[in-house]
Amino acid sequence: MIYLDNAATSWPKPECVYEAVNRAMREWGGNPGRSGHKMSLAAGKVLEETRLLLARLFNADNPERIIFTLNATEAINLGLKGILQPGDHLVTGSMEHNSVSRPVEALKEMGITVTKVKTSPLTGINPVDVENAIQENTRMVVLNHASNVTGTLNPIAEIGDICRRHGVVFLVDAAQTAGIVPIDVQKMNISLLAFPGHKGLFGPQGVGGLYIAEDLCLNPLKQGGTGSESKSLLQPLFSPDRYESGTPNMPGIAGLGAGVRFILEQGIDRIRHKEHLLMTKLLSGLHNISRIIVFGPDTPEKRAAVVSIQIKGMDSLEAAMILDQAFEIAVRAGLHCAPDAHRTLGTLENGTIRISLSYYNSEEEIDILLQAVAAIAGQS
Amino acid sequence: MIYLDNAATSWPKPECVYEAVNRAMREWGGNPGRSGHKMSLAAGKVLEETRLLLARLFNADNPERIIFTLNATEAINLGLKGILQPGDHLVTGSMEHNSVSRPVEALKEMGITVTKVKTSPLTGINPVDVENAIQENTRMVVLNHASNVTGTLNPIAEIGDICRRHGVVFLVDAAQTAGIVPIDVQKMNISLLAFPGHKGLFGPQGVGGLYIAEDLCLNPLKQGGTGSESKSLLQPLFSPDRYESGTPNMPGIAGLGAGVRFILEQGIDRIRHKEHLLMTKLLSGLHNISRIIVFGPDTPEKRAAVVSIQIKGMDSLEAAMILDQAFEIAVRAGLHCAPDAHRTLGTLENGTIRISLSYYNSEEEIDILLQAVAAIAGQS
Repeated sequence: MIYLDNAATSWPKPECVYEAVNRAMREWGGNPGRSGHKMSLAAGKVLEETRLLLARLFNADNPERIIFTLNATEAINLGLKGILQPGDHLVTGSMEHNSVSRPVEALKEMGITVTKVKTSPLTGINPVDVENAIQENTRMVVLNHASNVTGTLNPIAEIGDICRRHGVVFLVDAAQTAGIVPIDVQKMNISLLAFPGHKGLFGPQGVGGLYIAEDLCLNPLKQGGTGSESKSLLQPLFSPDRYESGTPNMPGIAGLGAGVRFILEQGIDRIRHKEHLLMTKLLSGLHNISRIIVFGPDTPEKRAAVVSIQIKGMDSLEAAMILDQAFEIAVRAGLHCAPDAHRTLGTLENGTIRISLSYYNSEEEIDILLQAVAAIAGQS
Repeated sequence: MIYLDNAATSWPKPECVYEAVNRAMREWGGNPGRSGHKMSLAAGKVLEETRLLLARLFNADNPERIIFTLNATEAINLGLKGILQPGDHLVTGSMEHNSVSRPVEALKEMGITVTKVKTSPLTGINPVDVENAIQENTRMVVLNHASNVTGTLNPIAEIGDICRRHGVVFLVDAAQTAGIVPIDVQKMNISLLAFPGHKGLFGPQGVGGLYIAEDLCLNPLKQGGTGSESKSLLQPLFSPDRYESGTPNMPGIAGLGAGVRFILEQGIDRIRHKEHLLMTKLLSGLHNISRIIVFGPDTPEKRAAVVSIQIKGMDSLEAAMILDQAFEIAVRAGLHCAPDAHRTLGTLENGTIRISLSYYNSEEEIDILLQAVAAIAGQS
């Protein structure tokens, strides 16, 4: 199987990730932060180390401001619902994933007003438009770093600067960029960074997280046991305990730590460089096949390693099925849980075929994919 | 290391659990329910199978009413916040874990009124007291199946019957019983059953779940991508999608499935029988050591495999530290995230030393523990 569905979840993971999960279950099987015995302390250390590695990757000063969630969706929900109150105004884009659009829709019901700024599939959101959308009661701007449909990168640093100047909280959905595109929460003025553990960061499914800037205290989505301040019926005020109730996914967090360590060792520039090479080959190859429509920016620099296409006159789901069944190539077709993005692209009916790359893909795999796409587009 | 902290998390797991997690990551690495290719379908099948096994274990008719969460705490939060509205009244006990007590405290702030029924550490909550606490606006009763401090079993079936007769939702926290004590959601009239995956069910940490009765539609804690009804900005109404936004913990769910299959193969009666044997030995041994106070019921039939003790005149944390350092025995000391239970017991200051057993413990381990406890109690 040639796996080109890395925007859904990356596969394979580095060997060290599988090993870390296995070792965490077998050897450090205690419950982190719950007891004082050796196995519980060893489990607690896993969490500490992974926080440290993530803080280093995202240039966060304090590792305790990195909190773990089930996935990026939970992190985004926490960021949005932990800050916004009835009467607040929110600015977002028109190319967001349902992990943003759906909780935003639910917030509207609670009296939060929303401006969706039209976002270009080619150049991302225009910072000027974002600034113009900010009102007196704007409390937050929420945007993806890169579209999960077209890969289009948003100008996060510029928008971070605007948010800082206006005193607005900036929540970034890094689902398609964490581990792939450099992110510096301080330089980019990011207040809240939501990230999945299982995509670019190479961790297993079941772990994501949120960076929370020092000056923010969010209402948690859940309350419960934290192993701290146990006498109190009130949720602790301090991070990470405020946001991490109940037993965490210790083996998953061990795997995520191994993934982030791998990225830091390889160097994110090297990873990005490899993906640029593959994307350049992919984009130029696709442009040479007739009947193929490629969405999003032409140059790899302007996108994450996610490319959406359509084959003119052909159902996207059918094309993906042929790739899977006849060519053993895994891609994803449809709306990719991002109807707003497809409304913006004009592809809501047929969706797109999404090809998403990883550091582990090879040029040979891109060649095989291009031949397969050409064969399908030529035949039908 | 003799591991007697199974109420925090069970260890070791059956070998098949480690293998299932490993295989899920390495072989079925796709994102379940997100794409149509083989690896995504294989990952989706993992979720389906685990739902089926859990439905069989808890005698739920429809596997799609079993939903996956990060842990039991999230499941309890979803159960409470998904149902209760300002103006509603809630009945709970005085021996609950912070996974119940803390979200209940947060709900009070939102205009939900609460009656905490005094619960006996020896016999559990009295069904008559629960029935007397039900008011016209009572919407829910929430109770643990067994205390995580004393192991005391609550008369769940009797209370389920009361809830049914009064048209009240019954949420059960099965953190200490799922996989250890038989649970039948239909016979026991349980509307919502919250369970951890990583304790009695032998799954890895990072997965728990909630059974939701057919007639209930909860407000979800989170909205996001579900891989279904992707054109809509509204969260789907149907289970499990309504409650499972974003990428699930597929490897963890694979491990949980293996754990539940192991339990079904062994038979829950056999597991309970083994734990009874160990508990009988433990309880009688403890009663023969001077200076030991044992909390909770005298007979194994009335408790889960959780035993709390104090050594008269000795700090519980210190005793647990000696067990760890000098005897290589892992137990937990302190409040166990259950301050209400310690208020009920009168142990809020010193906490307790908690010894919690698993199917994998042996009589020899109990002997060694008893000798160690006797040595500590004799010396100090």
